[in-house]
Amino acid sequence: INTGTMIPLFLSATVLLILCMTSSANGGNILVWYAEASHWINLKPVLETLIDRGHQVTVLIPSVSMFMKTNEPSRFRYEPFNASFSLEAMETFMDKVFQFSMYEMDQMSYLQIYIKFMDMMKTNMKFSLGYLDGVLKSDTTMKKLKEGNYDLLLADPIYPGSDLTAEILGIPLIFSLRFSIANNWERLCGQLPAPPSFVPAAMSKLTDKMNFSERVWNFVFYILQDIVLDNVFWKELDKYYSEVKGESTLLQYTADIWLMRTYWDFDFPRPFLPNFKFVGGIHCRLAKPLPEVGAFVQSSGNDGIVVFTLGSMIKNITTERANMIASALSQIPQKVLWRYRGEKPKTLGANTRIFDWIPQNDLLGHPKTRAFITHGGTNGIYEAIYHGVPMVGIPMFVDQPDNMVHMKSKGAAVIVDFNSMKTEDLRDAVNTVINEKSYKENAMRLSSMHRDRPMSARDEAVFWIEFTMRNKGAKHLRVQAHELTWYQYHSLDVLGFVITVVLLLILLSIKTCKYCFRMCCNRKRKTKAE
Amino acid sequence: INTGTMIPLFLSATVLLILCMTSSANGGNILVWYAEASHWINLKPVLETLIDRGHQVTVLIPSVSMFMKTNEPSRFRYEPFNASFSLEAMETFMDKVFQFSMYEMDQMSYLQIYIKFMDMMKTNMKFSLGYLDGVLKSDTTMKKLKEGNYDLLLADPIYPGSDLTAEILGIPLIFSLRFSIANNWERLCGQLPAPPSFVPAAMSKLTDKMNFSERVWNFVFYILQDIVLDNVFWKELDKYYSEVKGESTLLQYTADIWLMRTYWDFDFPRPFLPNFKFVGGIHCRLAKPLPEVGAFVQSSGNDGIVVFTLGSMIKNITTERANMIASALSQIPQKVLWRYRGEKPKTLGANTRIFDWIPQNDLLGHPKTRAFITHGGTNGIYEAIYHGVPMVGIPMFVDQPDNMVHMKSKGAAVIVDFNSMKTEDLRDAVNTVINEKSYKENAMRLSSMHRDRPMSARDEAVFWIEFTMRNKGAKHLRVQAHELTWYQYHSLDVLGFVITVVLLLILLSIKTCKYCFRMCCNRKRKTKAE
Repeated sequence: INTGTMIPLFLSATVLLILCMTSSANGGNILVWYAEASHWINLKPVLETLIDRGHQVTVLIPSVSMFMKTNEPSRFRYEPFNASFSLEAMETFMDKVFQFSMYEMDQMSYLQIYIKFMDMMKTNMKFSLGYLDGVLKSDTTMKKLKEGNYDLLLADPIYPGSDLTAEILGIPLIFSLRFSIANNWERLCGQLPAPPSFVPAAMSKLTDKMNFSERVWNFVFYILQDIVLDNVFWKELDKYYSEVKGESTLLQYTADIWLMRTYWDFDFPRPFLPNFKFVGGIHCRLAKPLPEVGAFVQSSGNDGIVVFTLGSMIKNITTERANMIASALSQIPQKVLWRYRGEKPKTLGANTRIFDWIPQNDLLGHPKTRAFITHGGTNGIYEAIYHGVPMVGIPMFVDQPDNMVHMKSKGAAVIVDFNSMKTEDLRDAVNTVINEKSYKENAMRLSSMHRDRPMSARDEAVFWIEFTMRNKGAKHLRVQAHELTWYQYHSLDVLGFVITVVLLLILLSIKTCKYCFRMCCNRKRKTKAE
Repeated sequence: INTGTMIPLFLSATVLLILCMTSSANGGNILVWYAEASHWINLKPVLETLIDRGHQVTVLIPSVSMFMKTNEPSRFRYEPFNASFSLEAMETFMDKVFQFSMYEMDQMSYLQIYIKFMDMMKTNMKFSLGYLDGVLKSDTTMKKLKEGNYDLLLADPIYPGSDLTAEILGIPLIFSLRFSIANNWERLCGQLPAPPSFVPAAMSKLTDKMNFSERVWNFVFYILQDIVLDNVFWKELDKYYSEVKGESTLLQYTADIWLMRTYWDFDFPRPFLPNFKFVGGIHCRLAKPLPEVGAFVQSSGNDGIVVFTLGSMIKNITTERANMIASALSQIPQKVLWRYRGEKPKTLGANTRIFDWIPQNDLLGHPKTRAFITHGGTNGIYEAIYHGVPMVGIPMFVDQPDNMVHMKSKGAAVIVDFNSMKTEDLRDAVNTVINEKSYKENAMRLSSMHRDRPMSARDEAVFWIEFTMRNKGAKHLRVQAHELTWYQYHSLDVLGFVITVVLLLILLSIKTCKYCFRMCCNRKRKTKAE
């Protein structure tokens, strides 16, 4: 049985299936919640496919955005709304986040990190609510949305407010997300089971194989993150929603379908529910030819090339770090394509070329590509998985350290630390993933896992979006656990009752035995006495 | 968005997909474990599809079987083995089981039922081990199997021994099953999460909506069934396996992929795992024309027909019950097709015709069919779901009462009791599901749910069977929970540790406070004394 011949045929069959589906999909009217950065990058291919299939896609777009631009040519309809803060305020905050995550955190105590983190989460929440003002508290926007007669709202829940908007519009809601802090929303709102004994909490840097102390840490981490989220997210949002609705509201924050942007090639196998669909790698596609950088890539000869980017968020790093990195890269035999917008480092080798932007997916799919140096964003990792390229991770923040731990534990990556790494660390790491065969083999294994499923990630996402429109929701996939309290869910009330009954029965039988025994003794005594 | 036009197009696309898949599947060599009755009926269509796709299918077939016959024309290769008991012994036992389930159980106390049930389970286990003697303890059979160079073993785990056989042959294993008692194997061997608060235990007759006392009963039921299974199944099988392997063995009883024969049209939504695939309705297919019974069906006019069968296991019922049923059926305006092998009842109406065998799926798919009277077997129910036919359930044993509770709770069926029902009960039940519109509507809703999924059940089953052969197992879908003990899984050790630490900290701070307080007091006293 040959996987090689299987996959292309399967793909073409899938295309046929899609063509058939296209002809049958009567255009739906889809509203898309605003999103930023990788979240927006990840939504786009699904929206493009939905438009190809005859649906109308309208995207809510804020007046202040670092990534969403209405002036770019696009097939989406845009519904603009006002954010109650300036782009400068947003950018200053993001710079602070980067500074903290990349440089300051390493020099801080746990307590300091915690205080700073809470502070940043609170500011972030203020921005989120600033966006919401322009939607939920704007009569103009809400009137337009109501008149839009949408069939569905598609949203990344990291940008809050979509659930209340869907409720007010009376339409089904689909979440698309990578993860929430400690899987808090998935667990507490989506009822996704997450036993801390083998499901590592988000941002814990743990794998599914944990020893006792790691399991203790994971357990505590879940609780700590729940407390953080309760304080900086739930309380604020409950208050805001209550204000909008004019009545006290406790958030549900749940959706008809949860499109999770991972799969078992990337994530550790875990329990899930019928309305959770794992569609990691939505944006992956076959590589296209590379006219712009073709000559440079070809000049690499047998040594091949290394692709290096720190993602769409990081534009600049300190001169010292840039020089160190450039120096390390100059010591490897491969040609390096580095996406970097800062000043050209002095130590830049002849083998390294800096680009403002690189066609990342097409480069990773090029047969000459030997390794990918990455900050560990989900989108980039998925492109590397898709094309079977081993990785060197320089993770920065949020899910990136976790993501790289996943790739390392699956044997497809080496991790180096951005702040503490020296020239030789980075150089050795790149040489290791290129020269030790196991890294390439494991990357190819992940690639095979990624492709060997009944439907591509994008087709599956599109199927469930259309499914939810067809059925006006997805009620029959919703577990009854939503109607239970936490102690009912864990059967604690039942357990308490059963234990009480058992104890009472034991007590009763002891009392009865004692009584019988006493009666017997009395009779014997009486008999003796007679 | 129109579901009506969507479904046929989707089906044709699926056929295209299958054709594409066919050309790419290099023939695998599949071994199939023996099975009986509905278990065998359900496996057949998958095996047929596998043969269509170029695989070789070899079925282990015992010398003693009520359903598997080597002399029927078939495209399967057969591998016969000897069972160490006679067909008569088997048939006598099955008759006893039917007698108990259909007539005797109603007159027994819970304790009597329990004792009788345990006794029957033990006898059943003896038969199972009697079959196993012909495989695992037969050098001839094991030699042939080893020489067969199989790529995969496909088995219904209700017939034990397949796991050890797969282990000895060193090949991957796929389970296909409806359920095990209290989901014992799925939970304890497959690590499938089953919170008793909303996942009803098998054979509990409960739904996913339970009040407090039902949750208590469900909780206790899980424990009781685990105890039963531990005594009649695990201990016996552990002993047998240890004997075969020549070393003490604790059963794993798990597989690479679990093909569960339900879906959310039939079952209640519940948590599951990446290697559990829900493929209920594998055998469903479009109805074919009905030359044999066509005239009788057509003669029903606008009233239409009712299809009635008690399944492949029940061949006979008492004259009294048969007369009662015939009398009830004679009072409805529909024509009735009754599959029955007993003596012709005296009260049989002109509208009812008895058949030795009926083309059940084709009849249920006929546009004149108004209702299905069924014993509640999974296969029959799935055919009714597929064709959107409301049901009257007369459940007998094992999963049948549960199955009918599912259909009733979804509003597509009425249940009557075989022993206590009177003529008017059955008549009214049939009239209700035919005349009250909601039953037909709900049946059609289930039919739509059943068909509206990315892939048909059979295609999905075939995909995962081929997937497992391609990948020589399905390791990356296996949760790490398999490596944990039950108290580790539930984090009880972690919880104990955390509580101890917290208590110690509290104790320490109290002691410290007390000490400080005493020191202060002492100093004050001293100060005063001075």
